[in-house]
Amino acid sequence: MRWAEGFIAVDWGTTNRRAYLLDSSGHCSNEFEDSKGVLSVSTSEFPAAVAEIRGKLGDRPMLLAGMVGSNRGWKEAPYVPCPAGIDDLVAKLVWADKREAIVPGVSYIADGRGDVMRGEEVQLLGAVAAGLVDPDAVVCHPGTHNKWAELRGGRIHKFQTIMTGELFSLLKDHSILSDLLIGEVGVNDTFCAAARYAINNEAIPADLFSVRANVILGEAKKEDAASYTSGLLIGTDVRIGLATPIAADIVVIGRPELTKLYAAAIAQTDRTAVELDGEKCFLAGITEIAKRMN
Amino acid sequence: MRWAEGFIAVDWGTTNRRAYLLDSSGHCSNEFEDSKGVLSVSTSEFPAAVAEIRGKLGDRPMLLAGMVGSNRGWKEAPYVPCPAGIDDLVAKLVWADKREAIVPGVSYIADGRGDVMRGEEVQLLGAVAAGLVDPDAVVCHPGTHNKWAELRGGRIHKFQTIMTGELFSLLKDHSILSDLLIGEVGVNDTFCAAARYAINNEAIPADLFSVRANVILGEAKKEDAASYTSGLLIGTDVRIGLATPIAADIVVIGRPELTKLYAAAIAQTDRTAVELDGEKCFLAGITEIAKRMN
Repeated sequence: MRWAEGFIAVDWGTTNRRAYLLDSSGHCSNEFEDSKGVLSVSTSEFPAAVAEIRGKLGDRPMLLAGMVGSNRGWKEAPYVPCPAGIDDLVAKLVWADKREAIVPGVSYIADGRGDVMRGEEVQLLGAVAAGLVDPDAVVCHPGTHNKWAELRGGRIHKFQTIMTGELFSLLKDHSILSDLLIGEVGVNDTFCAAARYAINNEAIPADLFSVRANVILGEAKKEDAASYTSGLLIGTDVRIGLATPIAADIVVIGRPELTKLYAAAIAQTDRTAVELDGEKCFLAGITEIAKRMN
Repeated sequence: MRWAEGFIAVDWGTTNRRAYLLDSSGHCSNEFEDSKGVLSVSTSEFPAAVAEIRGKLGDRPMLLAGMVGSNRGWKEAPYVPCPAGIDDLVAKLVWADKREAIVPGVSYIADGRGDVMRGEEVQLLGAVAAGLVDPDAVVCHPGTHNKWAELRGGRIHKFQTIMTGELFSLLKDHSILSDLLIGEVGVNDTFCAAARYAINNEAIPADLFSVRANVILGEAKKEDAASYTSGLLIGTDVRIGLATPIAADIVVIGRPELTKLYAAAIAQTDRTAVELDGEKCFLAGITEIAKRMN
């Protein structure tokens, strides 16, 4: 396997996949994204779906991460327990076929409470490998399921998942608040005030219904409801994430439109956070994994 | 209007309506329920929908409560602000037509945070009127949107809504937990342990994702997930409701399958709760309103 001559990295999630043609130093010369997520591909269809990627990017060996390694994906790559660093992921790579390796997810269990991640570990450890994050840091990774991870010595020491993004989507798409949450969420006074409130009070689920009641009673404007609700949810998330005193830096990794909301909420505490682009961290992480396979 | 000769009471909600033929003492001689909720009836169709009720129960004057008085109902009956007793509701009845009166809902605003109820007020005040609840009590009314109300001198002094029932439905019908929440929720060891945990810890949204992770990692059984999640949600609800020390009795009014879950969660604190059937309380309340109209 000549990984040094370049390889294809795939971030294959539930609803989307993103593929990159990389050289051995992680430089990307070609890439594409489509909606062929894991849920739209049956197990027997994966070889064809993989061939399609090679048809677009070239005939190179492939490193895959994300839900493609779940029990709904191509081949299950069992979770590596914390503490987990790059070498632990490399040691537990699962070969789906001769030239296709799947990166395992990471699990954490304490006091009978379990947690799992799949995909975020590449970004978190990639940020460390690229020198973008201190080996001892607190990292938050917003998305459908936000992760708060504590890094120690460059490994994921422990982490916790908060279902913030999914809760907002559920409320927006299916709840009694749906017609109020159609507006854009922005870092504005309403968002910051709601985040500040939720950092200091238990707002979820106590204050969710007030989003509607306040509009009905003329105490709030309908167009502020989306930012207000997002502020309540993300502020709650930040309060839970920062419940334990943290001496380390706080870093937020992910899509820029989400990291800016979390950074703004964290700024309502006495802390600040550095934002990092998740895609950049993914490429750094997957390149580091490929290097250590050689 | 000869209400003393009997009347029809209608509990007209969002998705269902229930109608009763009552004599002046509240005795019910005929009734029916169907799925013709407010959302399935356009404004112009209400006279026909009301005639249909009379066709089944008789040609009597009618007292209507619930979402029929909302801005999506037949005719809007503006909210009566707290403190609100039976006489306050009677004073603000809205006549939709010559023989059809709609009971207003109740609102509460404090520190810029608003709350509303529509339908529950008849049950809460009916329970007091029937002598089932002390005029100074804390009453919880589970449903899609649980209400915690403080009664003082037989009036609703203040209240707070927790979106517990709707959150459970959203998680069950549309979330990543859906396939785990298909089982029956029961008052069992799993439910009580989860409720106890949530009474002592901030479990929502912190622990929701662990429902799935625990099953994946073999830390919990799939068939316990529904009771566990319900315990987390209702335990959280109870913790918020009982956050202020309460000297008064705690009463849970509603559908028996819900009141038993709340009573079991409350029993995980150092308090106990009395359960009352919501339908019985509705009939007592609506009869008391009719009496005071004469």
